[in-house]
Amino acid sequence: MKIVALKMLAAQKMLLLLCVGVSLAHDSVASAQLKSIEERLTATEETLKELKRENEALRTITKASSDKLESIQAENKGKKVAFSVGLLASGSDQTGPFDTRTTLIYKKIFTNTENVYDSNTGIFTAPVNGVYFFRFYAHAHSTKQMAVSLYKNDQIQCSVFTEKPVTNTNGSNGVVLSLVKGDRVSTQLWENSWVYDDDNSYTSFSGFLLFPL
Amino acid sequence: MKIVALKMLAAQKMLLLLCVGVSLAHDSVASAQLKSIEERLTATEETLKELKRENEALRTITKASSDKLESIQAENKGKKVAFSVGLLASGSDQTGPFDTRTTLIYKKIFTNTENVYDSNTGIFTAPVNGVYFFRFYAHAHSTKQMAVSLYKNDQIQCSVFTEKPVTNTNGSNGVVLSLVKGDRVSTQLWENSWVYDDDNSYTSFSGFLLFPL
Amino acid sequence: MKIVALKMLAAQKMLLLLCVGVSLAHDSVASAQLKSIEERLTATEETLKELKRENEALRTITKASSDKLESIQAENKGKKVAFSVGLLASGSDQTGPFDTRTTLIYKKIFTNTENVYDSNTGIFTAPVNGVYFFRFYAHAHSTKQMAVSLYKNDQIQCSVFTEKPVTNTNGSNGVVLSLVKGDRVSTQLWENSWVYDDDNSYTSFSGFLLFPL
Repeated sequence: MKIVALKMLAAQKMLLLLCVGVSLAHDSVASAQLKSIEERLTATEETLKELKRENEALRTITKASSDKLESIQAENKGKKVAFSVGLLASGSDQTGPFDTRTTLIYKKIFTNTENVYDSNTGIFTAPVNGVYFFRFYAHAHSTKQMAVSLYKNDQIQCSVFTEKPVTNTNGSNGVVLSLVKGDRVSTQLWENSWVYDDDNSYTSFSGFLLFPL
Repeated sequence: MKIVALKMLAAQKMLLLLCVGVSLAHDSVASAQLKSIEERLTATEETLKELKRENEALRTITKASSDKLESIQAENKGKKVAFSVGLLASGSDQTGPFDTRTTLIYKKIFTNTENVYDSNTGIFTAPVNGVYFFRFYAHAHSTKQMAVSLYKNDQIQCSVFTEKPVTNTNGSNGVVLSLVKGDRVSTQLWENSWVYDDDNSYTSFSGFLLFPL
Repeated sequence: MKIVALKMLAAQKMLLLLCVGVSLAHDSVASAQLKSIEERLTATEETLKELKRENEALRTITKASSDKLESIQAENKGKKVAFSVGLLASGSDQTGPFDTRTTLIYKKIFTNTENVYDSNTGIFTAPVNGVYFFRFYAHAHSTKQMAVSLYKNDQIQCSVFTEKPVTNTNGSNGVVLSLVKGDRVSTQLWENSWVYDDDNSYTSFSGFLLFPL
């Protein structure tokens, strides 16, 4: 009996040690695995933080680019300002003479984006702040004084003038003007002056935006 | 013997309990570690999903911006349309009179982007839909009728005319036209009319795109 | 005693087996958890790599877009070139005649972006390579020869001319020129010629950039 019990004790002891050994070995492997996982996880978390910073930077750049683009597109869209008109819509006629300077009202519309030119008043109104180019052309018959000036609001800018043409006379002038939104540009026939027009459109007025300001 | 065996048993029991205790403690530490790792991993996965959504949004915005940019660049590139030509390449000469209206063929090239103006025919062909500005200048000697009109395809747009100038006469006119790709613009000398040109280039024709449509 | 010892041994054995069992079960659960975590971590690391590649691509596109935008903005900014000037700042006067061709110095400034036109010399200097449009207008009184030419550096480009006007005469001409930065453009009054100007600004000179090259 004693021997049996002692053998059992010995076997139990070995089994116990084995179990403890296996368990410890197990723990040691698991521990190494955990350590590796933890390291990888920490690295992953670091990379994520970095990516978030990158994305934040990307978002900032992308937002700025998108805003710039919109402003360029708006500017490009705003650039599409032009009108071009002839004095008579049809037929042939002298215009003038008048006792006072009189705004010429051109009736034949070649181009008129967004109705910047008002064919009831003869006045172009600047839709945006910017630098614009304007040109006008006047035609007169012999013996008629031809005199036309271009006005920015109520200020004369440039003119054509022929006192007593011996035969038909053609005159043109033009100017680049810096306008603020709402400024009005028109042409005025001087007192005691004539211009002539017919279907050939000798007498005309044009303008367009060069660039917004 | 009994005492020895009992002592061994007691020692074994203590070792066993110790081992179990250590093992359980070990397990408990590992379990806490696992829990913490799992929580961090879950958070990381969430952040990743968020970043992916962000990237998706960024890609969408970036793609849209890139497309807009290309269209702006194409539009800007397409805007580079201009020509400017003088009637005679060299020498001095009267052109006309002819029995019928005749297209003026300008031979001195100042500017001609992408050959929009054809120096064999005198015709400008619109390379893109857009709003264009055209100008022409005519010079005649005394006693010669000067009459030139600008045509869009077969339709007269604007003109200069002097019946019988007493001395040299200069005339110019111009117009802003909305053209579709392929529209042709040219100037025609009227029947029984003259224009004069020499190395000083009095008689010329110019046009350029203001903006595409 | 023997029976007590044997019972203790049996109990110890059971406890031992239980402990080992629990420990192994514990290990098995932990092991499955570890495996799952490792798989998720690996997936996360893969997704991160993918996101980094995506971000790299996004950065490249965003950088390219940002560069393009800057070049478009610089081009748009560089496009804002225009001047427009009248001969006399005030009063009325004949200019000329001179023994030799003389640069006209326009004193009334309508527009002059970044001082591209020098009101001391009468010369416009191209601030950037590009295609420009220039126009000039001349006015003369009867019996005075009117003759003005536009020059690019020292080369004549286009002209207006009236030998002996019977009454006031208006002439205008213009040209589209491709210029390199630093090219100079001006107008010259011919020898033995006059131009007239007053507050109505008949005699003027304008130019603007159509597009950079």
